Amino acid sequence: VPNTEFLSDLRAAVGEQAVLSGDRLRDRAYDESVGEVRAAVLVRPRSTAEVSHVLRLCHARGQAVVPHGGLTGLVYGASATENELILSLEAMNRIESVDVAGRTLRVEAGVTLQRTQEEAERHDLLFPLDLGGRGTATIGGNISTNAGGVRVVRYGMMRNLVLGLEAVLADGTVLTSLNRVLKNNTGYDLKQLFIGSEGTLGIVTRADLRLVSRPRSFNTAFVACRDFPTVIRLLGHVDSHLAGQLGAFEVLWPEFYEITTTPPATQSPPLPYGHAVYVLMESLGAEPEADASRLEQTLA
Amino acid sequence: VPNTEFLSDLRAAVGEQAVLSGDRLRDRAYDESVGEVRAAVLVRPRSTAEVSHVLRLCHARGQAVVPHGGLTGLVYGASATENELILSLEAMNRIESVDVAGRTLRVEAGVTLQRTQEEAERHDLLFPLDLGGRGTATIGGNISTNAGGVRVVRYGMMRNLVLGLEAVLADGTVLTSLNRVLKNNTGYDLKQLFIGSEGTLGIVTRADLRLVSRPRSFNTAFVACRDFPTVIRLLGHVDSHLAGQLGAFEVLWPEFYEITTTPPATQSPPLPYGHAVYVLMESLGAEPEADASRLEQTLA
Repeated sequence: VPNTEFLSDLRAAVGEQAVLSGDRLRDRAYDESVGEVRAAVLVRPRSTAEVSHVLRLCHARGQAVVPHGGLTGLVYGASATENELILSLEAMNRIESVDVAGRTLRVEAGVTLQRTQEEAERHDLLFPLDLGGRGTATIGGNISTNAGGVRVVRYGMMRNLVLGLEAVLADGTVLTSLNRVLKNNTGYDLKQLFIGSEGTLGIVTRADLRLVSRPRSFNTAFVACRDFPTVIRLLGHVDSHLAGQLGAFEVLWPEFYEITTTPPATQSPPLPYGHAVYVLMESLGAEPEADASRLEQTLA
Repeated sequence: VPNTEFLSDLRAAVGEQAVLSGDRLRDRAYDESVGEVRAAVLVRPRSTAEVSHVLRLCHARGQAVVPHGGLTGLVYGASATENELILSLEAMNRIESVDVAGRTLRVEAGVTLQRTQEEAERHDLLFPLDLGGRGTATIGGNISTNAGGVRVVRYGMMRNLVLGLEAVLADGTVLTSLNRVLKNNTGYDLKQLFIGSEGTLGIVTRADLRLVSRPRSFNTAFVACRDFPTVIRLLGHVDSHLAGQLGAFEVLWPEFYEITTTPPATQSPPLPYGHAVYVLMESLGAEPEADASRLEQTLA
């Protein structure tokens, strides 16, 4: 249990409602990937300045901190012990600005991937990162884990989509390398260190993201392969013949395919069981009919 | 002039022929971007171990070092004074291996961009970075400057094409993060620090590069625009309608266009003078005829 003075310092820093301990912390929704939320206290700051203030207090006291994003990770990176403080970015959930001509978006770290995608779509643009946890996963978590997702073959990993970011170090120092220029080579690119380092070097608070043209056609194909070498050849074939339109190429093992297409799953199997590997692929293009027939011809 | 003991240590490290000083250094080809080559001595090691050995000797002596790649840069990053030692990567010019299925290429830093492109082409693949100095510019220089080039809109900057690298620190320590896995998120991605930092943190000696599908159609268009906002709209339009096929979009100011199309230049102007901005664009696709008509329709 944190001492009274520390708790009152935290409350002074972020406000009464943003500091959860005791019953209020125990009542917090249980999360499968983290297990029961255990921590000395949970703090949810609303701004970079508040994150900095909280970390400064923790640093002075030697208080261990575990950052929380959307908690969709499956590797227990967000697990905390009774002695640790959880710093959740959930209250930093503002989309700050969009530059439609420059195709960039500035968001706070607690904005979900899905809201980011929707904001881009509103301006007829695409934020290309996509993964199953989109409704809960946050941009801060996508950055801290350097997420890949289903469209990594076309648009690259999160690292390729982050133009700039702001992070707070353990002692409260705010590092700002917010940047909206795609081809920026000034100085050392220190922001790269915060991408994929799971919050161990600092807590990401805001980011400038890169948007791209929104595809006008989305076509999918589901293919069964006799063995894995065939999958490799298929990837080379479709990547070459779709010429930049291949958006996703997801390989499914037969066990996974069977379990997701037999009750209690509600999906029925589009192809018979018994093949060695299955592939779900997507082409992203500009002309719905021409692109559909191009995908069909490629697979003929 | 470096003292005899240091010179003989360098010769012991890399061999007589790899240490140039005095007349042999003065006779070296003059380079426009660097100006007359001035240095205490020039050393051209043939391996990472030799680079390490040379840097260790320089470190012990407090000898300043200037790394040399292809010398195509225009910002005097390779200029040296009479007191500095030039470490040229020119003798580290081996293409070490190609993984055709995994689409990676391992090269030494002194390999030129053009040889890298040709090696990829030999395996029906593409190394997508491209710029005018390709015949002279080296991979080490492309990495150290985080080169962009004419196809940056499609394939990203050099950072996006480097999967792993090896670098030698000033004290001779060899750091190896050679890696051929595209989606590698293990540990801190320290190699990022060497990309774009102009050799100030260490000398890049080898790299694993990413290859992509080789396009089967190359179509170009040259367009005159009435003003710059039109250029921005044109980029959005073609990027959206070419759906991943837009390979290059280079903007030319009228002064540049005129000077490159009037004698002594041998080119004749494809479009009349007098427009505010010109754009040279390229589409990279899979079906030569269909892609050509798609580009024409997009611009109609």
